[in-house]
Amino acid sequence: MSNMRVNGERLWSSLMAMGRIGATPKGGCNRIAFSDEDRRARDLFVRWCEEAGCHVSVDRFGNTFARRSGRRDELPVVMAGSHLDTQPTGGKFDGVFGVLAGLEVIRSFNDHGIETEAPIEVAVWTNEEGCIFKPMLGSAVFTGMIPLDEALAMREERAGWSIEEGLERIGYAGDMAVNSYPVACYFEAHIEQGPVLERNGKVIGVVNAAQGQRWYDISLEGQEAHAGPTPMDARRDAVVGASRIVLEIDRIGRSRPNARSTVGRVSVHPNSPNTVAGRVTLSGDLRHPDDAVLREMDGELRSAASLVSEELELGLDIAQRTYIEPLAFHGALVDTVRRFAQQEGEPYQEIYTGAGHDACNIAKVIPTAMIFVPCEGGISHNETENAKPEHLEAGCNVLCNALRAVADGEVDLS
Amino acid sequence: MSNMRVNGERLWSSLMAMGRIGATPKGGCNRIAFSDEDRRARDLFVRWCEEAGCHVSVDRFGNTFARRSGRRDELPVVMAGSHLDTQPTGGKFDGVFGVLAGLEVIRSFNDHGIETEAPIEVAVWTNEEGCIFKPMLGSAVFTGMIPLDEALAMREERAGWSIEEGLERIGYAGDMAVNSYPVACYFEAHIEQGPVLERNGKVIGVVNAAQGQRWYDISLEGQEAHAGPTPMDARRDAVVGASRIVLEIDRIGRSRPNARSTVGRVSVHPNSPNTVAGRVTLSGDLRHPDDAVLREMDGELRSAASLVSEELELGLDIAQRTYIEPLAFHGALVDTVRRFAQQEGEPYQEIYTGAGHDACNIAKVIPTAMIFVPCEGGISHNETENAKPEHLEAGCNVLCNALRAVADGEVDLS
Repeated sequence: MSNMRVNGERLWSSLMAMGRIGATPKGGCNRIAFSDEDRRARDLFVRWCEEAGCHVSVDRFGNTFARRSGRRDELPVVMAGSHLDTQPTGGKFDGVFGVLAGLEVIRSFNDHGIETEAPIEVAVWTNEEGCIFKPMLGSAVFTGMIPLDEALAMREERAGWSIEEGLERIGYAGDMAVNSYPVACYFEAHIEQGPVLERNGKVIGVVNAAQGQRWYDISLEGQEAHAGPTPMDARRDAVVGASRIVLEIDRIGRSRPNARSTVGRVSVHPNSPNTVAGRVTLSGDLRHPDDAVLREMDGELRSAASLVSEELELGLDIAQRTYIEPLAFHGALVDTVRRFAQQEGEPYQEIYTGAGHDACNIAKVIPTAMIFVPCEGGISHNETENAKPEHLEAGCNVLCNALRAVADGEVDLS
Repeated sequence: MSNMRVNGERLWSSLMAMGRIGATPKGGCNRIAFSDEDRRARDLFVRWCEEAGCHVSVDRFGNTFARRSGRRDELPVVMAGSHLDTQPTGGKFDGVFGVLAGLEVIRSFNDHGIETEAPIEVAVWTNEEGCIFKPMLGSAVFTGMIPLDEALAMREERAGWSIEEGLERIGYAGDMAVNSYPVACYFEAHIEQGPVLERNGKVIGVVNAAQGQRWYDISLEGQEAHAGPTPMDARRDAVVGASRIVLEIDRIGRSRPNARSTVGRVSVHPNSPNTVAGRVTLSGDLRHPDDAVLREMDGELRSAASLVSEELELGLDIAQRTYIEPLAFHGALVDTVRRFAQQEGEPYQEIYTGAGHDACNIAKVIPTAMIFVPCEGGISHNETENAKPEHLEAGCNVLCNALRAVADGEVDLS
């Protein structure tokens, strides 16, 4: 099997051209879903795809698909993609890389006169970032996790327009039924959004799983008291209790490989320097790729918090407000990514995603895998988000060879 | 020496009558300094004092003094007092007890036809609570800690009126020069505002000292990171660092008798559940009656915070924003309070004040002591603030006998 190589310079210059739409002064992008910038980014993508000979179709939720025909167009399509919308102070790579890497693969196939058996498609999912609405809506509608009508009827809070109206306004309220033809598999290339590859000196992340997540609201009820006259042993100090729980949560993550545990939000009442706090609420965020381990972490959080609550005589309430099941990506596709990462000759490693991606939705109904490349300092959702051209090129090479292998029937997806 | 007893029922009914001025629905008082309620409370006090045969004078800062003549009016006056202003959701006893206990002593002397050698005065200090301005202003001006002109010129932030204007409006901009005649000593009876007496089953607190205080602003600088992709060992989590410092501060107080240590305020940035926090600021409040121990606690706080900062690679800034020196009340006066507490036949104990009082200012220039009585659950600055009539009566008995002993020259104040 030959080792296809894409045109890294063309990929980079396309990323830079797309980055000028909604460009921010600090080098990032402001391209919120359903905005004029979202429209202009989609329009540019459609033009580029049509120039590359693709047929573009748009479904009723605005998900956009550019198809390059195969020798046998009746075969299920082999798909790559991601999103073009960004955070208000987002970067030039998050999402965009996955879309333009797909386009670069098609352009490279054209350059080399390569035909594939199955057709290839590049997907742009609507509203991944969720700045106004929930995140990952386009892929959620595609998989049926959220009914189309319900999603179209979602309304922006202030001005009150619906997603249906938003899509009409930007010209991407398509006619095509959602998920109306067979898709063989889905690949998503993405910047890592974490520091692991960079720290390990790796260029490719073979993404084998998505972490499960449990999010909590934890509240502790003590008793307000004057910080001067109240002896230490007469206190029921909610800040002290919260601090112990923070350290327990931190320990839960540190004591297990691959686990994450975070308290990012703390609110203290009355939050006055000379008053022992009567109430603290804190967030808890536990993540692990193995559901059994995640359940174990959940149990440990609850028992640690109960112990603190008993010892300090604090009222305790723990509400789990989000549960996302861990996800294993498709074994044969992960193997394919690994094979072409090896062939690329650059350092690679197995990795899982801690952040959510459209691929995590799509994986529920279609064989799916992801390819990560490093981003500078692990920073994303930030105007300073950055990635190296040679890393993006290497990731795109892996995507290219993987798409071709599947499209040519070399991977057993059964 | 005879054991004088005051009229506890009259004391209680006076407290209840005063409590109706600015009464709140939950049984507390809203009587902020310079308000109409402050005026009405002062007017009632003045009327009661004049009915008891006192001469009332008001100094240029509104501090009000009701004098009962002695046999030798040329002797330095023996003074008791406190304040009549309250927090916006304050109680009926904080401050008011000290003032009305002084009045009850005078009424009881009248009942029993008792004359004292030196004159007796009951003082009402202006603006103790500091809801609009700094606290304890009247006594600070009296002692010269704050120059009169500077204090009169202080302005309320929103409407912009000055304290001078506020005093004129309520009719308490007096003519008398501040601190213009000799005062032999000052007693202040007060509810404890803490739970120590109640927990120990004591009725009288012989207050021998005021805690020294050191207040800090502590800030920790870490790095914001995505809670999903960022491995535990790649984090510089300011919430984890802050939690360790909270527990260290708590330990510093718990490991020393009579110490207090509190973190009452915590602010987290960006305070988002799935972002490792990049910055936390927290307050620190250390108190101890012994300055050397307080200094030791300061050193321990700083070295513990430094260690946390080094271990977690967090930027650290510690700014001490308040220092109040510990204060020992006047030995002979404390002995006098103890003697009459013993004579009262109720359980008593040595105690120090953790909260600030006018007495802490006055003590800097005049021999001073305080008498504490229990308050329910140690709760004050709260509409539910409560105290038992028999405890207030016992405290007033001690004040009565102590005032009489000093006024009759039985206590050596040299």
